[in-house]
Parts: sequence; C-alpha cells; structure tokens
Amino acid sequence: MTDQVVIDYTNALAAQVGDHGISPSELDQAAAAAGAIHADLVQKRESGEMGFFDLPYQNLTKIIQFCSACAVDLENVVVLGIGGSSLGARALGRALLPPYHEFMDSKGREGRCRLIVADNIDPAWFMGMLSALDLSRSLFIVISKSGATAETMSQFLIVRELLIKKFGMKGYRDRMIAITDKDEGLLRKIVDQDELKWLPVPGNVGGRYSVFTPVGLLPAALCGIDAVSLLKGAASVDRRLREADFFDNPAYLLGALFYLADVKHQKNVLVMMPYSSQLLDLAEWFQQLWAESLGKAVQVDGSPAHCGSTPVRALGATDQHSQLQLYQEGPNDKLIAFLRVEEFKEEAPIPSAFEELEGVSYLAGHSLAELINLEQRATEMALTKAGRPNLRIEFPRITGETMGQVMYLLEMATVFAGGLYRVNPLDQPGVELGKRYTFAMMGRKGFEKEAQEIKAFEQSVKRSRV
Amino acid sequence: MTDQVVIDYTNALAAQVGDHGISPSELDQAAAAAGAIHADLVQKRESGEMGFFDLPYQNLTKIIQFCSACAVDLENVVVLGIGGSSLGARALGRALLPPYHEFMDSKGREGRCRLIVADNIDPAWFMGMLSALDLSRSLFIVISKSGATAETMSQFLIVRELLIKKFGMKGYRDRMIAITDKDEGLLRKIVDQDELKWLPVPGNVGGRYSVFTPVGLLPAALCGIDAVSLLKGAASVDRRLREADFFDNPAYLLGALFYLADVKHQKNVLVMMPYSSQLLDLAEWFQQLWAESLGKAVQVDGSPAHCGSTPVRALGATDQHSQLQLYQEGPNDKLIAFLRVEEFKEEAPIPSAFEELEGVSYLAGHSLAELINLEQRATEMALTKAGRPNLRIEFPRITGETMGQVMYLLEMATVFAGGLYRVNPLDQPGVELGKRYTFAMMGRKGFEKEAQEIKAFEQSVKRSRV
Repeated sequence: MTDQVVIDYTNALAAQVGDHGISPSELDQAAAAAGAIHADLVQKRESGEMGFFDLPYQNLTKIIQFCSACAVDLENVVVLGIGGSSLGARALGRALLPPYHEFMDSKGREGRCRLIVADNIDPAWFMGMLSALDLSRSLFIVISKSGATAETMSQFLIVRELLIKKFGMKGYRDRMIAITDKDEGLLRKIVDQDELKWLPVPGNVGGRYSVFTPVGLLPAALCGIDAVSLLKGAASVDRRLREADFFDNPAYLLGALFYLADVKHQKNVLVMMPYSSQLLDLAEWFQQLWAESLGKAVQVDGSPAHCGSTPVRALGATDQHSQLQLYQEGPNDKLIAFLRVEEFKEEAPIPSAFEELEGVSYLAGHSLAELINLEQRATEMALTKAGRPNLRIEFPRITGETMGQVMYLLEMATVFAGGLYRVNPLDQPGVELGKRYTFAMMGRKGFEKEAQEIKAFEQSVKRSRV
Repeated sequence: MTDQVVIDYTNALAAQVGDHGISPSELDQAAAAAGAIHADLVQKRESGEMGFFDLPYQNLTKIIQFCSACAVDLENVVVLGIGGSSLGARALGRALLPPYHEFMDSKGREGRCRLIVADNIDPAWFMGMLSALDLSRSLFIVISKSGATAETMSQFLIVRELLIKKFGMKGYRDRMIAITDKDEGLLRKIVDQDELKWLPVPGNVGGRYSVFTPVGLLPAALCGIDAVSLLKGAASVDRRLREADFFDNPAYLLGALFYLADVKHQKNVLVMMPYSSQLLDLAEWFQQLWAESLGKAVQVDGSPAHCGSTPVRALGATDQHSQLQLYQEGPNDKLIAFLRVEEFKEEAPIPSAFEELEGVSYLAGHSLAELINLEQRATEMALTKAGRPNLRIEFPRITGETMGQVMYLLEMATVFAGGLYRVNPLDQPGVELGKRYTFAMMGRKGFEKEAQEIKAFEQSVKRSRV
C-alpha cells in the first residue's frame, strides 16, 4: 500500500469559518467551470503545448547513466541556476537528503554528497561558497534553457575559468555538466564549443514546471535521491486525476479553493506553512509556481485588471512565534495552507526532569514529533475559531513518492487555477522590462533605447532621501 | 567618517507612481500626528516601559566576560530558542559571519565558530543537527524569558540529557548557558537547580525587541561579532533621531510610509527584498517585528476591526525569477522595500570568454557586485514605471555598525507605526489561544476546559477530505 497525500479542506468552508469561507454554491460554480477547463488542459496535453503532464512516464536511462558515468569522486553537487532552474532541485534536496547534510562529514551524510544550489549572484556569498568547497571533488551543473540568463551565465563564466585554471580543460569537462535546450541557444553553443556533457530540457516544459526533467532530477539523482520514486508518485496522481470528477480531484479542488478565497473572499495572501523544516523549500518552489503562473495583467470587460494572490511561505512551529499573531488577529485577508507530516523519521522523545516544575514536567513522555503535530492542530483550531480559513495537505511520510505526488498535484492545481483566472499560466511577460533595463545598464548592444529611457528617468527625478 | 544607512523613498511617492503612491498631504497628516506619538514614546522610554530604547548605552562587560570565560574549545554555538529568542541572533550571524561558514572548516571560518540557530522542533531536523555536531566542542544557549516556551524547553530537556550522559554534570554545565528573566520563571528555577551560568533579559524588553540584549549579543559575540560596533550603530541612530523633525527622521518616515501604503492605498503586503543573501535573515527578523507588533484587533468607532500589513521576505536577484512577475503585473497591493549594499566584500569579476557570442560576452568586464546592484536598480525602475510603489534602504557596507543602525531604526519605525495604527506594539494576545489548545492536547493540568472545547470541536465537524 502506497503512501497517499490527502487534502483536508474542512476549515476553508463557510460551514466552519462563516462568510470568510468558501460556500457550497461557489464550489458548485467552480465545478461547473471545471469541465471546459479540463477539456482545454487535455487538448493542450495532447497537442504537446503543456509538456509537463507527460513527464512522469519518461525514460530515466540517460539520467541514471550520467550518475554512474561521473568521473569525479563526488563530495559536492553544485547547481548554477536561478528560478525554475534551481527551486525544484532545492525543494527535493531539502526534503529528501538528511537535514543539515551540508555541514555533515561523509558519515553523517550517509555517504551522499552535498547538494548546493547557487541561486544568487551575491558576490560575497558566491565566492565564499566556492572557496569553501573542495573543487576537485565538486561537480557543477549549469542550467539555463536559453543560455541568456545573466545571473547563471555570469556564475558559469567564473566557475569555468576557475576550473580550467586549476584542472585544465579535461578537468573542467569532468566537473561541468550543462542542462539546456536541445537545439538552440547560447548555452547549447557553448556546450559544443567546450565539448561539455549535457542533457536537454524539453522544449515544451517551462522553468517552473521542470522539476521532473533533468533540471530537477539530475542534481537529485546525483545526490542519491531515487528519481524513479518521484516519477512513480507523480504518475499515481496523474492516473488518479485523469478522469476524476471535480469533487474527487484534489488538484482541481485545491486550485479552486485558492482561487475562490482570493477572488470571492478577498484573501489576496496565500500562506503555505509546512510544519516540517524539510518542506520549507517546497513552499518556496510553490511560491514561484503560483506567483509567476498567475500574477498577470488581464482584461475584464475591456478594462485592464490584475490578478493573482501573493504566495507566502511560513514555517511551523517556528513562525507561530513570528507571524501567528498577525494571522490570528490581523486583517482576515489570508488563506493558510498547512503542510503536515504524519510520521517523521525520528520521534525525538522528550526526557523527564524537574518533576516538581509542572510547567516543564508535562512535556516528558511526549516527543518533538508529537508536539509539532499537536501545535499544527492547535493552531488550525485557533484560526478556525477566529473565522480564518485554512486547509491541510497531509503527507503520511516525506518520501520520493509523496514529494512526487505533491509537486505534480500543485502543478495541476496551478494550471487549473489559470483556467479560473483566465490567464496563461505558462508565460511571464512581466519580467521582460527589468531584464531589458539590466541589459541596457550593462551596456549590451541593442538596448540603446532603454539606455535613453533610463537616462531620462534619472534626470527627471527629484530624489527624496533621508 | 562612519558608514550611514540612507533611505530613498522617491518611488513610494505619488509624484513617481501616481495614485498608488503616498501624497504630500498624507505625509503632512502623518507629520502632524508625529508630535503626539513622539511625546508618548518619550514618556514610555523615560518610564522604562519601552526598555529597548536605552539598550545602545548598556555596559557590555558581562557579555565580554562570558566570551573569555568559555571553558570549551568552541566549534559550535547553538541557540535553543524560537521567535524573538532566535531571529536576532540569526540575522546577525547571517549578515556578519562569513557566508557559508556553517560548512567551512576552521580556516574557512576565519577561526570563528559556527552559529547554529535551532529555532524549530522538527524532530528529524533537530536530531540530525545534534548528530552532526561534535558535542564536546559545542556550547548551547537556551533562551526563554519565562521558561514556559514548550518548543525551547523540549529542546533543552533533550540536549540536557544528552550532555549529562556524555560529559557528566560538570561537562553539561560547561556546555549550557541560559538567558532568562532575572527574577522569576521556570528557566530561572532550573538555572538555580542545575547551577547553570546565565545572563538576564531585561524585564522591560520583549522578545522581538531583544536583539541588543544578551539574547542577540551573546551568541553573536561568542562567534566573534563585535557587539560594541552594533551598539555604536544603534546609538548613532538614536542620537540622530531623538530631536529630529519628522521629515528628517528616517525611522518615523519609514514607519509612516509603511502605514500609509497599507491604510490609504490598500497595499496590505509589505515586501522586504534584500539584494544580498547575507541580509535575508534580517528580512525575517523584520517580519516578526512588524507582524507581531502591528497585526492586531482594534476598535474603530466601537466596532471590531483588524489591522497590520503582511510582511513578506523576498531575495534579490533570485526572486526576480520567482516573484517579480507577480509584483510587476499582478494586483497593485504591495509596497516593496529593497535593501541594497553599495560595497560588497568581494567584487567577483566576470571573466571574458566566448567573444563571438554577443549574448554572453557583454558580461565580461563587469562583476557580480555590479550586476546584482544594476538588477536592483533595473527592477525598481520597471516597477516604478508600472506604478508600483517601492523604496530603498541603502547600506554603504554590511558591518556591525550598519546592522546596528538598521535594526534600531526598524524597531523605532515599528513602534511609531504602532502609534499611527493605534495599537500596542509590545503585546501579542493573539497567540494565546493556540498555546492553550496545545497545552490541553499535551494533557497539561489546568487546561481541562480547552480539552473539552477541542473534543466538542472534533465531534461536531463533518470532515471534507480528498
């Protein structure tokens, strides 16, 4: 019997939290819309426009071969990537590698190597990271579909020079793998020129839906995470949902609840709050998936409008001592999605001591596992009592399969919500302007118009500084 | 000449972003209210009710003595604390210790020890952390003002037993320090019983305002962070602001801008986005400060209402590839506060290569430091062009002094905003119910009423699960 992730949305409903909750008629409306959205998604799946749907059924031979062919006695796998090229691997590593593995010795890491996701260009941080690693035992994976990502390509140029200086061209080739478009782009050209090993990103899978491509799977597999189990989990969700009625479809229901809370109940903040340190980067992965897919300009009756709730990550129990006061008594403008793990790898029993101090001694005989889950339950009850809608995504355990299930389910929930919001969940037109301004400031050819615009902007402004 | 942090709020104003920005008359209204709020804060400072104001002028002898008296050859300083007992130390460690120091060897750490902030009770994570450490070279600091914090006391009981088993009572005493109330509470009793070394938290300083007490300063100082420079930075802000007119007071102006964006312009999301990996935990520290201080139930004309914008942390340049699409084209419901570092410890020049590939070669001759700051500027210009209000907090460099300045300034901004929102920024009544439910579920005596309430709740509910 496989572990199966379950969604409990009792406390998101009007029956529990009154007017702030989703009403039966609102769910019925979403159910009525689901048929057409589902048909559209099926059509896009069949036409190949939404490539991520079929990833659970891919052949993993190439990825497995890459792992066994690695020429380096690996201590570190370092991903050079940003956004969709980094968040999936980070979420998998955080969830499925031993916690704190980065600063454990080989024994503590159970023989696995470290997974380091270099997803920023902070120079002190990036150079500090490089100087901390034994480069001879490090493998770098540069990930960019187009090879035009300024951050990733800058990192790549720095690491490339460092490796060539230290180990020569062959040593560099042993320690650098590229993941990029299979036919075109700058990184594809560099692969040819430098004779690098590489794997393709399917052309019809965008960054934020790419965790089940080599982008997520290769770094994970190199660190000993079982890619087969991830796909198995994703496939089980796909098969379960393909013909499911709306009310039996956890992905569509979840997408609808997130959408309805925002649009019908002005919950423009969508909190994802795992009660598990290992699931925190999954919440960040979801933040990108939701924000970049649905935060869009739209036309409503011919007028411009803007949609998309703001995904926020919080951590239980930690943020009970940081954000809970606001969630409980601040504006009722949030839907809170808890992630809960029923069975942890350790229980961590709390020993008895200070028996005469009642305020401490009641802890004895319980465990940290019990405490964190009771706190989750207590928090959701307190929020419910205050009329604050919330729901729960339950992991029986954190495994490759349950991670595969949840990530695939959240991808489906997001594209379904795209149907409800009536936006294209696959594009990201809003990030282009900032990129063009950066290119112009960097003096790149072809961006002279933007450079003029920046100059005019700078000159026109009267600065308010203090 | 000292480094001085500057706030540039040009792009938060109506002159730049139209109706979504703060108007001159709104600022004038805040300025008119500032006098009375300032007088109230001065009175609370003088009466001792707001103890944090005077912390910059404290005597550090005790903390310095503690550091020199440490009996252990230190490799790890581990904070057992949560919320206000952990976030300050985390922010200081992340900003001021070498990046990635946790998994560097002693040389990479510049001889300093690791700072590990154990601020969650995830059992796999907590036990994994303990098993990864050389306990003989680890010092634990248990921090709880009352000693009633279930999470921290559970961690303490586990570590206490482990240390006693391994090193005996003397070895345990050498490796455990407590920070707690000076007169009363459970941890204070345990200190006496176990004969532990300890330092006090001033009674008139709440958790989220405690970074400049031993709560933040002792862990920092043990890791070699210069506590004197932190206080020097805080004091310089205090002296500058004490008699400042509203428009010359960056703390009051900042608090007013955050408040006005929320209340007058429906920006209920307050994003703090450092373009520096080292400042990310500062953003999390601020999240607690703002959320717990201002997320409150209030009475407006006799009716219950709820206030407080939701603080969100994002990271530049990373989240340009995750959240920026939403910030740029989604609902205009955010005020974005950038943190920017003018001078990094490293430049990280980008080497030239692939000169014939124009889409890569333009990077050469620039540096990561230049790129990250150009991206910050490009992003704020793109947002401004789209009518999205934003502002910038500029660090000349990340030092003890600038961190001291910014943390003190943000504390003052928060209590000033408390005056504008008309809430008590020092309490947190909203977290009590969840705590009582947890106690009841743990079977603690005195919570039988809550246990009944929980039972009734569980029985009455028809669960919706999928």
